Amino acid sequence: MPRPVTFWFEFASTYSYLSAMRIDAEAEARGVDVIWRPFLLGPIFKAQGWDRSPFAIYPEKGENMWRDLERRAEKYAIPFDRSAEKLFPQNSVLAARAAIACLHEDWGREFCRYVFRAAFVDGRDISDPGTIADCIESAGGLAQIYMHMAHSHTQKNTLREHVDEAQSRGIYGAPSFIVDGELFWGDDRLEDALDWANRV
Amino acid sequence: MPRPVTFWFEFASTYSYLSAMRIDAEAEARGVDVIWRPFLLGPIFKAQGWDRSPFAIYPEKGENMWRDLERRAEKYAIPFDRSAEKLFPQNSVLAARAAIACLHEDWGREFCRYVFRAAFVDGRDISDPGTIADCIESAGGLAQIYMHMAHSHTQKNTLREHVDEAQSRGIYGAPSFIVDGELFWGDDRLEDALDWANRV
Repeated sequence: MPRPVTFWFEFASTYSYLSAMRIDAEAEARGVDVIWRPFLLGPIFKAQGWDRSPFAIYPEKGENMWRDLERRAEKYAIPFDRSAEKLFPQNSVLAARAAIACLHEDWGREFCRYVFRAAFVDGRDISDPGTIADCIESAGGLAQIYMHMAHSHTQKNTLREHVDEAQSRGIYGAPSFIVDGELFWGDDRLEDALDWANRV
Repeated sequence: MPRPVTFWFEFASTYSYLSAMRIDAEAEARGVDVIWRPFLLGPIFKAQGWDRSPFAIYPEKGENMWRDLERRAEKYAIPFDRSAEKLFPQNSVLAARAAIACLHEDWGREFCRYVFRAAFVDGRDISDPGTIADCIESAGGLAQIYMHMAHSHTQKNTLREHVDEAQSRGIYGAPSFIVDGELFWGDDRLEDALDWANRV
């Protein structure tokens, strides 16, 4: 019986976008259950002494990241528009809180993918409540209800707990995958993490 | 006709070790020529404001890197002994200068692999001339000749040129692969880089 994999993602993270688009199909092919867990990188970067994304701090690294993302998106046939760079990194707090509410529903992952596409294909501002409301409706939810939940204390506290848990588990970047205590970092470790779930 | 791929590597770099052990077989399978180019990360990290390896600066990142390396080495059936961590990151200046001399010979890549194994399997100090001399002899060269060359101005200047070229090409980590102006960073992009060589 394969063990479940926890998928730690951040809506502002470029490589989290790739994983969000890939993980369910790859997991299904391996019979692996995935738990989607949104968190925020900001507080974790701060603890490492970074006031911004390392891709913004180190221009060469940032430049090559966008090119790499273009190549990888093409390889996986995932839509991507580099003009997303203009808003990078986006404030993802509202999106993460909404996701915590929506992920209780069977259309929750679809909501997450709509948010990622809004950010990385349509170049929309995902800190804008209108964008998040549109994503809820597109995924099949009632915006009025889930936007209300996104602003509730429950969701705020849960998100804070996710960030604390990420930190305590040694997560330092996104996406990260945890299976059976093993931490895998990066979209390029997605397959390794899922394979690990099937290790005897 | 596939274009050649330049393999930029650093003897102190853990993921350069994996690529050094993998690249020739992967390249041959694709009919791609590879140019091996040793360089130093130290001056490049300094330019980014780091006085050490980022794996040493950020403990969580470092801890997970070693675990990831264990898992990847196992996946590729490449020998690896984590006690190499004790000497990490090693001073690789002598090794890189010797490699520049040895890579003119048909056993040069074998020399490089011996150096990497000395560092990451046998836990030997690769800044020790005795270690490098052993690697030359194991690869089939005369240590006396190539150690002499390693200390010559030609090799010193060439290594400096490699570092300058790496910087001017936007390289910020190792291993890196350049094909037709495209920069790929990391052992996990090795296959992508080689595939790019065959792109029409």
